[in-house]
Amino acid sequence: MPRPLITLTTDFGEGSPYVAEMKGVVLTLNAEANIVDITHSVPAQDVRQGARVLDQVTPQFPQGAIHVAVVDPGVGTERKIVVASIEGQTYVTPDNGLLSLITRHFRPTRMVEVANPKYWLADVSSTFHGRDIMAPVAASLGLGVELSEFGPPIHDLLELDWPELEVGERLIRGSVVSFDSFGNLITDITAQHLDEFGDRTQLQVQCGTHCVNGLVKTYAQRPKDSVAALIGSSGLLELAVVNGSAAKKLGVRVGDEVTVCR
Amino acid sequence: MPRPLITLTTDFGEGSPYVAEMKGVVLTLNAEANIVDITHSVPAQDVRQGARVLDQVTPQFPQGAIHVAVVDPGVGTERKIVVASIEGQTYVTPDNGLLSLITRHFRPTRMVEVANPKYWLADVSSTFHGRDIMAPVAASLGLGVELSEFGPPIHDLLELDWPELEVGERLIRGSVVSFDSFGNLITDITAQHLDEFGDRTQLQVQCGTHCVNGLVKTYAQRPKDSVAALIGSSGLLELAVVNGSAAKKLGVRVGDEVTVCR
Amino acid sequence: MPRPLITLTTDFGEGSPYVAEMKGVVLTLNAEANIVDITHSVPAQDVRQGARVLDQVTPQFPQGAIHVAVVDPGVGTERKIVVASIEGQTYVTPDNGLLSLITRHFRPTRMVEVANPKYWLADVSSTFHGRDIMAPVAASLGLGVELSEFGPPIHDLLELDWPELEVGERLIRGSVVSFDSFGNLITDITAQHLDEFGDRTQLQVQCGTHCVNGLVKTYAQRPKDSVAALIGSSGLLELAVVNGSAAKKLGVRVGDEVTVCR
Repeated sequence: MPRPLITLTTDFGEGSPYVAEMKGVVLTLNAEANIVDITHSVPAQDVRQGARVLDQVTPQFPQGAIHVAVVDPGVGTERKIVVASIEGQTYVTPDNGLLSLITRHFRPTRMVEVANPKYWLADVSSTFHGRDIMAPVAASLGLGVELSEFGPPIHDLLELDWPELEVGERLIRGSVVSFDSFGNLITDITAQHLDEFGDRTQLQVQCGTHCVNGLVKTYAQRPKDSVAALIGSSGLLELAVVNGSAAKKLGVRVGDEVTVCR
Repeated sequence: MPRPLITLTTDFGEGSPYVAEMKGVVLTLNAEANIVDITHSVPAQDVRQGARVLDQVTPQFPQGAIHVAVVDPGVGTERKIVVASIEGQTYVTPDNGLLSLITRHFRPTRMVEVANPKYWLADVSSTFHGRDIMAPVAASLGLGVELSEFGPPIHDLLELDWPELEVGERLIRGSVVSFDSFGNLITDITAQHLDEFGDRTQLQVQCGTHCVNGLVKTYAQRPKDSVAALIGSSGLLELAVVNGSAAKKLGVRVGDEVTVCR
Repeated sequence: MPRPLITLTTDFGEGSPYVAEMKGVVLTLNAEANIVDITHSVPAQDVRQGARVLDQVTPQFPQGAIHVAVVDPGVGTERKIVVASIEGQTYVTPDNGLLSLITRHFRPTRMVEVANPKYWLADVSSTFHGRDIMAPVAASLGLGVELSEFGPPIHDLLELDWPELEVGERLIRGSVVSFDSFGNLITDITAQHLDEFGDRTQLQVQCGTHCVNGLVKTYAQRPKDSVAALIGSSGLLELAVVNGSAAKKLGVRVGDEVTVCR
């Protein structure tokens, strides 16, 4: 049997000792756990970016993976902690919308509220449930403990409002959702949306004061320092500056409008 | 038998190739080692912050864990390298004070000086004993080599002066010891100290030009952008700016005074 | 049998979700893989620094290690992807010069072009071959798939021009190749070069407007804040500011000239 795979996604910052505390707790309870960091660079308390990371990355993981995500500005309040089964993987998170993007793509098959302190650390702090509740719950999941052991079933998760695309006959209006570490600008306009707009090389993409004529397949099809529009590796429309940073050059921000015209 | 667990704590920086060199050395000698990063973000040559990280994090790790800590401004000088058993875990570090905080809480049961080159790399550089001595010693510990094999027993470690709290009848005078990645300000005043000062909601906390009336249990009990005082996840008094950064807002530094009055 | 060891070296940035996607792909195909990060801090699209990292770090890894390196500005163009056996380890990289430094030190014993889509993800994007081709190829290598399965043999890799040292009777002229996380300045002048120049304590090292008389063995042989010249842990001449940063103090850059006179 392969070792249980437990991933961590937090806003603690790369190299945070808080992450290491969680790993210590997991390994104390489950010495065989294979712990993989997804990222600890979610901007502090930015549940939406945390939700985007889970939606982008976790579908690449194998069946049986256990994903712990801690972006938890409401720690210590009445917000619930949940365990959810989605597409054969299991998520342990605060119920604050962290799963509200992936659940638009995949329906959870089972969900429970984490309520049974039997599976928590003996002393639970008010400020670090990632270590005191979520890490030991994940370790126990990896040992084969059944979902129903952690608490009662629930049927709904907290949903966040995600901006809806406006799709007209000749225009799609979307927005900037993030920048990657290369400075590439990622939008919420998908390849599928563009499929209905015909020849991609004839489309016009606008963002801020920039206008790009035609999508390309790879960065190298445009000269250095020019702006390229293309479908990125997650199937989303991206704007990139060839060998440079769109984040720096385009002067736009997360939430700004992006349009595609035909 | 679970795989030997070897952790790394350094001031090399996240993503440093020096860390990767240490991992290569460990895995060459001990292919089954489970290597876990605690942090590589200790400020360069800051032995005190390294000591704080070990004291905060390693108690969360399981019995048998082997902790290698390399914050080593004296590399290549006469400073010793030591192996110490503390609470069922084993530490491999320069003898420069890195263990001087955890040893205030737990007494080492055995200590040896690392002196037997049999367990080192064949060529030892003058500037990187983490790779050439400490990594291979940790790998050998993970293979079951006895402490006494590495060198002669010692009975004392280098101690650093840690500022003592001043505890009066109505006042505790402590100091800022660090900031976490959220910008929360951590002090050296513990929950136990406050226990003797009565109702926490009646205490006054002062730091720099800021004064906070009453401790809370969670950040959410104070409005956004206000300063909250609370006991953090390590049992220490913290000052936090709700949904913000105390590091930025309070204008104080590590070492500055923090007082609690009743 | 130990678990297959797969390392990752990229320019995606520490904490990049792209790295996590690659790990998910590897673990989906090869649940037993032991994935180790070398670094994700190669400057964006800087193939030369990527080549330096591989040359510095991978010789520390054990026989059988599989190294995936993704610094790939030409992704989606005609550039090849290759698998190369070097000194008992296996490298999976774009053929863009990433291996052109290590191959100056060790001769590859076998090389193939990655051409057989059987070992790739079913859908290959135009912009992320690290995830779609190199990660699954590495996972398959870890399962024991033979090199010849991945594509036809090749006999040459793309070479980069690396500046040659100028070695005169009384002078060696080299250059700054990188700065480490302590701000130490690393040159391309090796210990072997200096061996032919006699007594190291009598040499003069010049860089920018700074001149250092005599090499030392360890930082501690020079007073705080002074500039020390010494052979670093990779066998290269370094300039360091004791307890400080040469990167900040010396005002020089990668590529600048460094000379040693006797």
